[in-house]
Amino acid sequence: MKLLEDRIKEDGIVLDCEVLKVDRFLTHQIDAHLMHEIGQTFAQSFADLGITKVVTIEASGIAPALYAAEVLGVPMVFARKTKSLTMNEELLTSEVYSFTKQVTSTISISKRFLNHTDKVLIIDDFLANGQAAKGLVELCQQAGSDVVGIGIVIEKSFQTGRALLEAAGIPIKSLARIKGFVDGQVEFLSADA
Amino acid sequence: MKLLEDRIKEDGIVLDCEVLKVDRFLTHQIDAHLMHEIGQTFAQSFADLGITKVVTIEASGIAPALYAAEVLGVPMVFARKTKSLTMNEELLTSEVYSFTKQVTSTISISKRFLNHTDKVLIIDDFLANGQAAKGLVELCQQAGSDVVGIGIVIEKSFQTGRALLEAAGIPIKSLARIKGFVDGQVEFLSADA
Repeated sequence: MKLLEDRIKEDGIVLDCEVLKVDRFLTHQIDAHLMHEIGQTFAQSFADLGITKVVTIEASGIAPALYAAEVLGVPMVFARKTKSLTMNEELLTSEVYSFTKQVTSTISISKRFLNHTDKVLIIDDFLANGQAAKGLVELCQQAGSDVVGIGIVIEKSFQTGRALLEAAGIPIKSLARIKGFVDGQVEFLSADA
Repeated sequence: MKLLEDRIKEDGIVLDCEVLKVDRFLTHQIDAHLMHEIGQTFAQSFADLGITKVVTIEASGIAPALYAAEVLGVPMVFARKTKSLTMNEELLTSEVYSFTKQVTSTISISKRFLNHTDKVLIIDDFLANGQAAKGLVELCQQAGSDVVGIGIVIEKSFQTGRALLEAAGIPIKSLARIKGFVDGQVEFLSADA
């Protein structure tokens, strides 16, 4: 997605060889117009699959997932990283290991919002080692839901996440695929067609 | 906002005399179409004030704030409840006390995203004791930004938040104002004009 790649080049900051900071438009300050375009692109890519729910994880996945859900005309559900006070019912839970933080956290979705009739599109802001997406896939599987696709805003293609998800047989659409960082500049692979 | 009040009556669950659970459309599963209507209503209510930023707090504030920002044509910034790994710069921070959880947490926004030229619309999902909104106002004040309005999706009018914010002289628009709960049913005040 050229609009996104241009924005990453313009506003992304390469912190070191593995970390790209995009807090000017995606992870802290959010450009709603860009998120709308991103959501629309995801919705078009996964049209005609009978999607019934869009699932993401708080907080930076919410904006692109919301617009995708709006265009698809289905509800969006975001997994929580901490348990809410009013989550007094049964939960789907999964353990997610963070390589950067080196901690395991429990993510959860209420059982009331996913079931065996659901066809789910998972959306997330980043794909690196694939642990967050894998955790979301596991929540859907626990509910008996069918994960029909995964939409990623920015993929770090030099890390192992994509291979992990492809091994599970789930179609992936990444809007920007980063090959690597050279002299503080981002180099892209061709994005998914 | 009748659409919202109807939805609260239909899908809201009164847990006890002070807790309303709206996780079927706002705080966990999100109805994007309803959020779009809500964002549009906020944008119309605070039009012509020269707003340059919409500010909210993760996670449930993001959806209504995003649509308000899109309609107003300005960026949205969400305050974080925990420090992000890539937040390596100077932060605006504020302490927020939660009466329900009885803990104080630190919320933050990067100094790069708010400054003395900004006119800010604060959006949040709930107004109860007003502590979260007060914390967001403090972040804006630290940056020298002018808070020109506060938009609240659901106000618990029987709690003290509104009085706290009105004392600070900031115009408030609440789309649903809850007078109280009677026999597990929600009773509304007239919403803000």
